[in-house]
Amino acid sequence: MRYELYYWPSIQGRGEFVRLPLEEAGADYVDVARGPRGMAAMLSFMESRSEKNPPFAPPFLKAGKLVIAQTANILFFLGARLGLAPKIQPGRLWAHQLQLTIADWVAEVHDTHHPIAGSLYYEDQRPEAKRRAADFISERVPKFFDYFERILQRNSKRSEFLLGRQLSYVDLSLFQMIEGLRYAFPKTMKKMEKKYRRAIALRDRVAARPRIASYLGSPRRIPFNQEGIFRYYAELEQ
Amino acid sequence: MRYELYYWPSIQGRGEFVRLPLEEAGADYVDVARGPRGMAAMLSFMESRSEKNPPFAPPFLKAGKLVIAQTANILFFLGARLGLAPKIQPGRLWAHQLQLTIADWVAEVHDTHHPIAGSLYYEDQRPEAKRRAADFISERVPKFFDYFERILQRNSKRSEFLLGRQLSYVDLSLFQMIEGLRYAFPKTMKKMEKKYRRAIALRDRVAARPRIASYLGSPRRIPFNQEGIFRYYAELEQ
Repeated sequence: MRYELYYWPSIQGRGEFVRLPLEEAGADYVDVARGPRGMAAMLSFMESRSEKNPPFAPPFLKAGKLVIAQTANILFFLGARLGLAPKIQPGRLWAHQLQLTIADWVAEVHDTHHPIAGSLYYEDQRPEAKRRAADFISERVPKFFDYFERILQRNSKRSEFLLGRQLSYVDLSLFQMIEGLRYAFPKTMKKMEKKYRRAIALRDRVAARPRIASYLGSPRRIPFNQEGIFRYYAELEQ
Repeated sequence: MRYELYYWPSIQGRGEFVRLPLEEAGADYVDVARGPRGMAAMLSFMESRSEKNPPFAPPFLKAGKLVIAQTANILFFLGARLGLAPKIQPGRLWAHQLQLTIADWVAEVHDTHHPIAGSLYYEDQRPEAKRRAADFISERVPKFFDYFERILQRNSKRSEFLLGRQLSYVDLSLFQMIEGLRYAFPKTMKKMEKKYRRAIALRDRVAARPRIASYLGSPRRIPFNQEGIFRYYAELEQ
């Protein structure tokens, strides 16, 4: 089956959490909005009056007749299909629970540069962004990392992954989280990484997987930039 | 089976989205933290070193040996068990997608009074809260309502619910959203409700269901208050 991913073509954003498992699995997929007339296709789909299950926002995935939105929901579906999720229901719920926790973390990253409104420019909410980012760095980043470090520690007798014995889509998402934080908050990460050795080791193992390494070096991987969820503003780290 | 719900005992919060389907289904459940020594039980569980699948935050649900956290994940599991979700996988993913969209909306409501940090008092982020709430009211509330109104409209040949022919947990969540917004933003809702007739009619149908009506009139329903996710600050509506 050829999967169709619909997401903004110029950023990694939430779409990247879907691209990574597709790449890791060597799945046949097309990143629709990056192709010719792709943006038009995405927008007309979202505004369609006939589509039964319209998404609230990208990313969304077409898989045959199915149309699925909400990143964690897409991963719940796709993880199972691509062999990147546990085989039984309790394991799948646990993987999904961790993914939803990462989704919360992603939303908080976004709000460090847009604490007031997504509809305003960063420049129109700088003082608020500084305050929010300071709290994010001192309180939230350690809280999330402590949690995932603890999960890795608990699973360490079974594997070096977050759950079970094999790589799952949640490991790929934690990799992406770390990559994004390194881009957005390099000084902070430099200081903190020593403390979260298991998470960083997981990041390294993911980066070294042949298909992921090849993807990261390809033009399919959009570079981090100042339009995405992870953005670098030096003043937010001070 | 007796379900055990763990959530902060003095607020509706995210726990309420779990209480509602349990009540609608007449399920056997205990709201653990509201009982004697309940808070201690909840906290010790969260800090347990032996628990295999520790939650990042409440609410979480114990169902036999399973422990499930993240509100939408709990509802995905519980909806199916309580007969409040579609029977087949595509329908379940669609219900979950809508629930995750409501979860995003809930997070945005929270941030109207805490745009900078959950760890600070409202009083320490009032100017920022005013700006964020203004955008929430003018941009976000209509956007979410437009979406759900459209979903109701699309499903109107099949039923008066959001999906399929029967009540689902997502209908209960939209009911709760409207109740919360009425508490937090009464003037705004008074103006807007005319425009979202299908959503308000759904709210009324949910409120009139015998078990929900009985629950809402019981002491089990914690009143809205100034500690929860939905809070009323008159100045945020100006």
